[in-house]
Amino acid sequence: MNSDFFLSRATVRRYSDKPISDAEITGMLEEATHAPNTGNMQWYSVVVTRSEEGKEALSPLHFNQPQVKGSQAILTFCVDLNRFEKWCRQNDAEPGYENLQSLVAAMIDCSLFAQQFCTIAEMRGIGTCYLGTTAYNADKIAEVLALPERVFPLISLSIGYPADTNKPSLRLPVDAIIHKEKYSEPTSAEINEWYRPLEEESAHFVDENKKETLAQVFTDIRYPKSSNELFSKTLHDFLVKNKFL
Amino acid sequence: MNSDFFLSRATVRRYSDKPISDAEITGMLEEATHAPNTGNMQWYSVVVTRSEEGKEALSPLHFNQPQVKGSQAILTFCVDLNRFEKWCRQNDAEPGYENLQSLVAAMIDCSLFAQQFCTIAEMRGIGTCYLGTTAYNADKIAEVLALPERVFPLISLSIGYPADTNKPSLRLPVDAIIHKEKYSEPTSAEINEWYRPLEEESAHFVDENKKETLAQVFTDIRYPKSSNELFSKTLHDFLVKNKFL
Repeated sequence: MNSDFFLSRATVRRYSDKPISDAEITGMLEEATHAPNTGNMQWYSVVVTRSEEGKEALSPLHFNQPQVKGSQAILTFCVDLNRFEKWCRQNDAEPGYENLQSLVAAMIDCSLFAQQFCTIAEMRGIGTCYLGTTAYNADKIAEVLALPERVFPLISLSIGYPADTNKPSLRLPVDAIIHKEKYSEPTSAEINEWYRPLEEESAHFVDENKKETLAQVFTDIRYPKSSNELFSKTLHDFLVKNKFL
Repeated sequence: MNSDFFLSRATVRRYSDKPISDAEITGMLEEATHAPNTGNMQWYSVVVTRSEEGKEALSPLHFNQPQVKGSQAILTFCVDLNRFEKWCRQNDAEPGYENLQSLVAAMIDCSLFAQQFCTIAEMRGIGTCYLGTTAYNADKIAEVLALPERVFPLISLSIGYPADTNKPSLRLPVDAIIHKEKYSEPTSAEINEWYRPLEEESAHFVDENKKETLAQVFTDIRYPKSSNELFSKTLHDFLVKNKFL
């Protein structure tokens, strides 16, 4: 695997009809379980949605993004304390994981598991797309997938062989991300320089949305405060109800 | 890259003296930035600690685990809203990201970035170890690394070439993790069966700790409720102070 593989990977939203078998998905998930995790407690599960009815039910919860129904499968990666706590209780052990630290550890581990799966799939030529909508509708997704208490749907991934070739997205120069020994507060000039290529590439979004700057497209259109706060309230209530907070 | 690579990977805690150059670390981090992320906003940074003083300062915050001082570098992967919000404000855009949804998105993206780095490093033969202590001491780590408000240290990774060969850890059978279409509540019998190999392999921990079951080693010794709650309080205060909650 040459290093261009990682630099040139891209999200794939449109899939061909080429099938992926249940056995292949299971095999890739098995490989992914060997990703690192806290204390080898494996506080995660994955629900694999392959049926048309299942995708139909999930689709509106992902804002009808076409990659849901167009995928070979939707994988919903969940924080899962249910299995581990059951094991504890069957073994005369009283779990103490209804708290923020445990939630954070589980969220990290669930994310590492999902990303390991993503890399494994991409190395086989399978395309993947993370659906950023999962935590917005965690409560309703939990209902559709029949998740019990202590299980929280964190990440959804659509998969399928690519229908077209996909261009990698621009990223900030790595110097914007790396800090040596201590955090180095970026200057205004650095920020202008780092974001300029992205601003140039995305100039049409500014025009289409009748905004003045690309940053306004993010704050006013794509990820506005009002939606963030609304979905945060729903998520907070879900996490409290499921004893994660 | 054959598929055994992922099945046979293992965490590496002891490192040889073989050096890793700054340029190699930077190159691997650059590749890792191409991992998926929400809206291409890259809400993360990484602080690279290579100096002896830096490792000395971090070591007690990671409970003096020897892989800190023994590493070629410690990489602290941080949720970073500071850079993005500065860009917004310089561009007449008012960020609305002081809420739970934004924190969750950033935590996921930071974790995917860290895991992509981990895979890239392991493919080059470099060993890695996640330090589960980062979120315990987020406040003190933030001080040592001079993190500004809106930056939260989430994951620390020690890296170096392996000093010895490392055996992959057991994982639960993948059937314990996968749910088809809907979550399938595990039965007591299934839980017994899934955890038995782990219980057999770890029987010596039960004896050493004078416990009755392996589950008690987790709940009473390794991840007890009292510590989880104490560190959760510290983390909660840190997140509130930094306007993440």
